[in-house]
Amino acid sequence: MSETLSSLIRERFGESVDVPGRLEHNSELTGLAAHRSHRAFTGEPVAPALLRTLLACAFSAPAKSDLQQSCVVHVEDRAVREQIAALIPSMPWIADAPVLLVFCGDHRRLRRICELRSAPFANDHLDSFFNAAVDAGLVMAGFIRAAQAAGLGCCPLSAVRNHAAEVAGLLRLPEHVFPVAGMVAGYPATERRITPRLPLDAFVHTDRYDDGDVEPWITSYDARRHAVLPLRPERQRDPGRFGCADFYGWSEDKARQVAVSEREDFGAFIRSQGFRLD
Amino acid sequence: MSETLSSLIRERFGESVDVPGRLEHNSELTGLAAHRSHRAFTGEPVAPALLRTLLACAFSAPAKSDLQQSCVVHVEDRAVREQIAALIPSMPWIADAPVLLVFCGDHRRLRRICELRSAPFANDHLDSFFNAAVDAGLVMAGFIRAAQAAGLGCCPLSAVRNHAAEVAGLLRLPEHVFPVAGMVAGYPATERRITPRLPLDAFVHTDRYDDGDVEPWITSYDARRHAVLPLRPERQRDPGRFGCADFYGWSEDKARQVAVSEREDFGAFIRSQGFRLD
Repeated sequence: MSETLSSLIRERFGESVDVPGRLEHNSELTGLAAHRSHRAFTGEPVAPALLRTLLACAFSAPAKSDLQQSCVVHVEDRAVREQIAALIPSMPWIADAPVLLVFCGDHRRLRRICELRSAPFANDHLDSFFNAAVDAGLVMAGFIRAAQAAGLGCCPLSAVRNHAAEVAGLLRLPEHVFPVAGMVAGYPATERRITPRLPLDAFVHTDRYDDGDVEPWITSYDARRHAVLPLRPERQRDPGRFGCADFYGWSEDKARQVAVSEREDFGAFIRSQGFRLD
Repeated sequence: MSETLSSLIRERFGESVDVPGRLEHNSELTGLAAHRSHRAFTGEPVAPALLRTLLACAFSAPAKSDLQQSCVVHVEDRAVREQIAALIPSMPWIADAPVLLVFCGDHRRLRRICELRSAPFANDHLDSFFNAAVDAGLVMAGFIRAAQAAGLGCCPLSAVRNHAAEVAGLLRLPEHVFPVAGMVAGYPATERRITPRLPLDAFVHTDRYDDGDVEPWITSYDARRHAVLPLRPERQRDPGRFGCADFYGWSEDKARQVAVSEREDFGAFIRSQGFRLD
């Protein structure tokens, strides 16, 4: 990685941060700052020992109260993989990537431990579900970092939740286990640009949340982003409903994206897996 | 970091993984594998430029559909900090740590963008809330990695959700913004051991979830963990209710922990912040 941390942060957030000199070439920090998703991979397989090493690094992530409420299913069986891929035809990388994983929240183990130790599980409410979901996210973030550090690329797939019940059925997820996101991984076939983000002040508040007047940030971010990652005119979502925008930036694209309901059955699925969300 | 990746993985999971030789001293992987939480810090302050650098690294994490639904509040105001600390007297490090952050899911921005772009927000259901929570987790994991790479230590604080409404009030979190976890950070005052985890096969399934007979794993993990991190007899939870166990291991401790309800008002809080969880 020859890029400095300062230059990566400037590329991401469009602003300068006064990076301490000793950290400019710290590989962990530049690795985080240089994050890119990859969906196109060479044919080179990922060795089983390498994958196991990366998963060991990922599952070393902090776990809420040390309750260890996450797991992953590595989809090796070609038939299972193809059935998952067939559910999401817009993402051909699901079928083609060298590795397909599905990270899950796992509340089953804890409930089995309660039975084993004859203590009643007294936390059947939203917070328990939430903890398992966030813990799976921490593990997933660790996997992404580990994979990139080993020269792989990867991409999370929240689309597996568009078909949560079917995916859970294929992977035989029992009660109290639920998919958080899939992940494809392999050796990247292409270079990818850094995706610019909103300015840091959009994310970082001091003492009190204050997002002020969002319009100037959003407009300036749309323009900054468009300069490096323009959305092609033919990618405008739903022009029949929203018309064809002269300038089609991130905010217009995201507003149109969330104007269409997705995964509205996820709550029903989670309840059918035995969770109460009160 | 002089420890090899193999030795860190063995210490964590109690088993050997065939780590590719080129990765034995990869600092990103050993950093992940060597994860420890820190709650005791020296008095050395964390320079503002350093903190901003670490947050820039953290917010470079992947974001679901690039919707950018997370934020953090850096609690600098001593009075606000003390009010948060007073809510959680069992954790004196909240008052004392050089840095206190609260990572949040942020759905407000997206809804403001919908207004700005005149598109209706059509995803008022569990999945939207879930995405913001997991995204905040990804950012939090990045912050932990970044802090450790820069020589700091940190510890997530899910306990801020024990008082979610009060914390949200103190930090002026508006509708559609919610705390996921707090975080203390600073320069570590003490060395900490790696916390052993369940064996990798408890976390990693192939093709189909299969946790088999959990009892042997749990028993053997309890013993392995007890050998390095014994729970002191006086730390047995609730002996009046559960008695005093001859052997008090992780599983007994965790079963007793979740036999007491915690944060059962979190769902009501989230709904009061404007989320629908159907």
